[in-house]
Amino acid sequence: MKPDTPESRWWGWGSPGRAYPLPESARDYLVRALDLPGRWPRHENIETVELPPVRFGRNDLASVAASCTLLSDTATRVRHAMGRSFRDLVRLRSGRLPVAPDCVAFPGSGESLRRLLATAAERDWVCVPFGGGTSVVGGVEALNGAGDRPVLTLSMAQLRRVLDIDPTSRTATLEAGIFGPELESALARHALTLGHFPQSFEFSTLGGWVATRSAGQGSTGNGRIDDLVVGLQVDTPQHTTRVGGFPASAAGPDLVSLYLGSEGRLGVIREVTLRLRPLPRSCPVRAFLFRSFAEGCAALREIAARPHRPTVIRLSDETETELFLRLSPPGTTVKKLVHRVGTALLSRRGVPLPGSCLVLFSFEGEEGSTDSAARDTRRALRGLGGVDLGASPALKWRSERFAHPYLRDELLDLGALADTLETCTSWSRLPGLYAAVRQALRRAIEESGSAALVLCHISHLYADGASLYFTFIGRADQIDPLTQWQRIKDAASEAILRAGGTITHHHAVGYEHRPWFEEEVGAAGADLLRAAAQEADPTGILNPGKLLA
Amino acid sequence: MKPDTPESRWWGWGSPGRAYPLPESARDYLVRALDLPGRWPRHENIETVELPPVRFGRNDLASVAASCTLLSDTATRVRHAMGRSFRDLVRLRSGRLPVAPDCVAFPGSGESLRRLLATAAERDWVCVPFGGGTSVVGGVEALNGAGDRPVLTLSMAQLRRVLDIDPTSRTATLEAGIFGPELESALARHALTLGHFPQSFEFSTLGGWVATRSAGQGSTGNGRIDDLVVGLQVDTPQHTTRVGGFPASAAGPDLVSLYLGSEGRLGVIREVTLRLRPLPRSCPVRAFLFRSFAEGCAALREIAARPHRPTVIRLSDETETELFLRLSPPGTTVKKLVHRVGTALLSRRGVPLPGSCLVLFSFEGEEGSTDSAARDTRRALRGLGGVDLGASPALKWRSERFAHPYLRDELLDLGALADTLETCTSWSRLPGLYAAVRQALRRAIEESGSAALVLCHISHLYADGASLYFTFIGRADQIDPLTQWQRIKDAASEAILRAGGTITHHHAVGYEHRPWFEEEVGAAGADLLRAAAQEADPTGILNPGKLLA
Ligand SMILES: Cc1cc2nc3c(=O)[nH]c(=O)nc-3n(C[C@H](O)[C@H](O)[C@H](O)COP(=O)(O)OP(=O)(O)OC[C@H]3O[C@@H](n4cnc5c(N)ncnc54)[C@H](O)[C@@H]3O)c2cc1C
Ligand SMILES: Cc1cc2nc3c(=O)[nH]c(=O)nc-3n(C[C@H](O)[C@H](O)[C@H](O)COP(=O)(O)OP(=O)(O)OC[C@H]3O[C@@H](n4cnc5c(N)ncnc54)[C@H](O)[C@@H]3O)c2cc1C
Repeated sequence: MKPDTPESRWWGWGSPGRAYPLPESARDYLVRALDLPGRWPRHENIETVELPPVRFGRNDLASVAASCTLLSDTATRVRHAMGRSFRDLVRLRSGRLPVAPDCVAFPGSGESLRRLLATAAERDWVCVPFGGGTSVVGGVEALNGAGDRPVLTLSMAQLRRVLDIDPTSRTATLEAGIFGPELESALARHALTLGHFPQSFEFSTLGGWVATRSAGQGSTGNGRIDDLVVGLQVDTPQHTTRVGGFPASAAGPDLVSLYLGSEGRLGVIREVTLRLRPLPRSCPVRAFLFRSFAEGCAALREIAARPHRPTVIRLSDETETELFLRLSPPGTTVKKLVHRVGTALLSRRGVPLPGSCLVLFSFEGEEGSTDSAARDTRRALRGLGGVDLGASPALKWRSERFAHPYLRDELLDLGALADTLETCTSWSRLPGLYAAVRQALRRAIEESGSAALVLCHISHLYADGASLYFTFIGRADQIDPLTQWQRIKDAASEAILRAGGTITHHHAVGYEHRPWFEEEVGAAGADLLRAAAQEADPTGILNPGKLLA
Repeated sequence: MKPDTPESRWWGWGSPGRAYPLPESARDYLVRALDLPGRWPRHENIETVELPPVRFGRNDLASVAASCTLLSDTATRVRHAMGRSFRDLVRLRSGRLPVAPDCVAFPGSGESLRRLLATAAERDWVCVPFGGGTSVVGGVEALNGAGDRPVLTLSMAQLRRVLDIDPTSRTATLEAGIFGPELESALARHALTLGHFPQSFEFSTLGGWVATRSAGQGSTGNGRIDDLVVGLQVDTPQHTTRVGGFPASAAGPDLVSLYLGSEGRLGVIREVTLRLRPLPRSCPVRAFLFRSFAEGCAALREIAARPHRPTVIRLSDETETELFLRLSPPGTTVKKLVHRVGTALLSRRGVPLPGSCLVLFSFEGEEGSTDSAARDTRRALRGLGGVDLGASPALKWRSERFAHPYLRDELLDLGALADTLETCTSWSRLPGLYAAVRQALRRAIEESGSAALVLCHISHLYADGASLYFTFIGRADQIDPLTQWQRIKDAASEAILRAGGTITHHHAVGYEHRPWFEEEVGAAGADLLRAAAQEADPTGILNPGKLLA
């Protein structure tokens, strides 16, 4: 029985029934600015994608087949072969995949999962936990570590039950394979919400969020997934381990934190208990313009020190602000508004357009407290040099919050190299990090023979710093776009580490960030994690090559 | 050179120059209610305390003596022999200590600390990291694990420098041996505060807080120490490891969390980078009475869901509320106030006195936001059945916040067994946990042949639950108070685990909580920690017997 997961495009992002085409003006602008060829051919039929041969023999899997759905048809293998990084999209489009799982297993109970893991350890099969497969760092790729071990990808798609909702404590325990929308609608029935909305929300899973230390769009106010997990249950080849479960404790190091970000290396996260909040009844939003990115940063640093922070707050740099406006089709409210404000008020106040920077924020919660917090924040931003644009640009952003990933496929269709990366640092290092990464990206793209478009926004605030989210676009090399991309990625990653940023704020490590991760945590830090992995998985069958070499 | 640490009583709590005698009425009440003998003799002279012989030979320490102050006189050994648990106080009073460090080392630099650890690993000397020595769980006791290994207690008293303050990011990096008041006064010069005030604040250290996952009185609003550490540096016999350092990251599991609560088992925490907040300029406080503990709990559960929570909020049960009033000398404002309110307003509204429960709260921060948050909270508490007592009971509590520990020595002087313990659970389990622990304590004290006084308050709120802090008092068995105490402790600990609480909310594990800790985290969880400890400290010289067997 095939599980009824959300339908999605095998070669790109999102729901096959949906499209968010680039407005024609934006499309023309990008083709011109980046000299794009206007096309990138794409393999059409999933059934004819070329895959490596299956390494399992006829009867190898017989003993697990009784307790677990197993599929190794081409379409299933393709759908579980990789995530959604730029590298993945390029390879999927080509119709030829160098790696794929030998089989995909869909355990439907703890018992069948445990049995599978025990058998895999006994027979030396690699197991790759697979949630929504939205990893952008190679986290679900069917690497087998060493030798000729077959790879069993372990889909969580049949482990999606809501196990318990405790409205008094505002907690819920769910199986880890549950997707974002299912989770939220189960909670909404109790007037509760997790409030965790990564841009991949519709196609990613609770277990994936926990395994990668995901941040959602509302994490500035609601906390990262790290802050929302009360406890969890993990299966390894030898044990079922339950950790956490208390609002707080001083009983030794917090073991929940060891599993957050463990990327499948310490076991399969099967159940998660979450800390919830009342479903918000009010969501005031607002947009502001600042004269420069530096001035916007200074304002956000002030907001970050407040006890009641916005749920969402973002600051786009000059380039991103300009593109945001270009992406608004002519004649829309936003465009009209900003242009009206821009030509009159803004220039009078010294906020030039283009050249200014957009801030969007929202508060979600009870009417009384969100209204007064939004009012205070508006007052503060005005005092810090911002020009109030009203609600409409923020409403536009909100309504499109899950649509942007579709644009990446549109860009690839035009022959563009388009990707994003994110980092985080302290307020004092932020300006240096911003400049260094931007320059590294521009230079590396230009050195690859293309014009460069590099956008950035602050995506999350913390008391002591903030995250930077970069989008970079160029013309894809028509012969070897992956080498071109790797050079750009290397240059940006080097710049991040040298300027004091973390290699990833929310995309995790997988294998794409692995070399820089080991540099970031140092040999002793990596060895500590290796020791934990060795303890949890003595034969090394769990997701080898991800996170740690 | 002896380091100039805060002067403190070797046999009990606090500064020798200070005393907070019990008001006579309270003293009489307790002597009568618990039938106390009124005395408990105490060994007077630290120089004549009996200690086990020193296991180091004449020249064993010569190689480290060059780079590090080493002391093994009786007074220094006594002062570093144990913490401040009830067991410790009983043994100190007796003038005969079964364990003590063979020598106390005071490294004054990273270099000298590293050399010490390397030598210790080579020669198989046990090292016990020692901050303020305020552990109440046996964390600093000079256990040597196995065999006849000598114990070198490693005082952090010479590692107390402020290394860097970054006012833009609102972070500071300090050496871990710094005491609470030194730390706060260094930060206050930059109009910043850590806002971490455990009751032991004046005599405990940053490194101790981190190693034990301490919670301060303001942790409901300001966060636990767990939330305040940005990064840290740790020395082990083989490495110096730097972890964290970013406001947030998704680069693998959070290694900072592995050291939080590591109780010396994973290395000596030498430097800590902290997340700070602006020094508060306003601190509105208020007291309320509720009809019952259950009603007070329900009200606090509502407050816990608010985006701007009080810095401090506490709810005392009926017994603790009554004792709080008895401890107020007759004629004081609080007493008069509560009695006036009590006899008139309270009884009319159905809030009986005695039998009602006191809530105290404060908000610390900017004037505007604290005032409006305090106003909202007052309104909410009124709506939830509370009777507003005004500010004075809360001001009284604030002014005495570091004085209560002195009372324990006063009680021991009267011949009482007096101790505290704390736990934490979800809102839905809280009533059951409260009843179970209270009953277990009362029964165990009564079975030991004494009347029992058991008080409790909610000390910290979380969205999903709260912590319970119990104080229990009885008549100490004059022949074997430690066995009497252990039976009571066992009964309470059993009750905590059975009712779904954690064995400790902020006192850590040491060896007093070790058996229940291993039950709480399970064999697989404990094995993961053991694997990390084995990696960090292959020869097992770091604080053996604490946290893990
Ligand atoms: C368009 C797009 C937008 C994105 N936006 C965001 C964003 O806003 N914020 C964000 O944080 N991330 C974002 N991501 C990245 C990605 O969605 C997250 O990493 C997400 O948490 C992955 O969830 P998943 O269920 O798809 O996990 P998968 O991709 O299936 O797996 C991710 C990793 O976790 C492991 N894993 C999965 N489930 C389990 C389990 N139950 N137990 C143990 N290990 C497991 C996998 O082996 C793999 O290493 C985005 C990705 C895309 C493509
Ligand atoms: C009266 C009283 C009131 C208290 N109130 C509170 C309270 O409100 N909140 C609270 O959380 N606790 C409280 N405690 C407990 C105690 O104060 C805390 O555990 C505190 O964090 C210990 O700090 P310390 O510097 O005294 O550490 P120590 O007692 O010296 O050490 C505690 C543990 O940490 C280890 N350690 C110390 N420094 C380091 C280091 N640099 N590197 C590695 N390991 C180290 C030690 O080996 C030991 O295992 C109280 C104790 C007393 C006696």
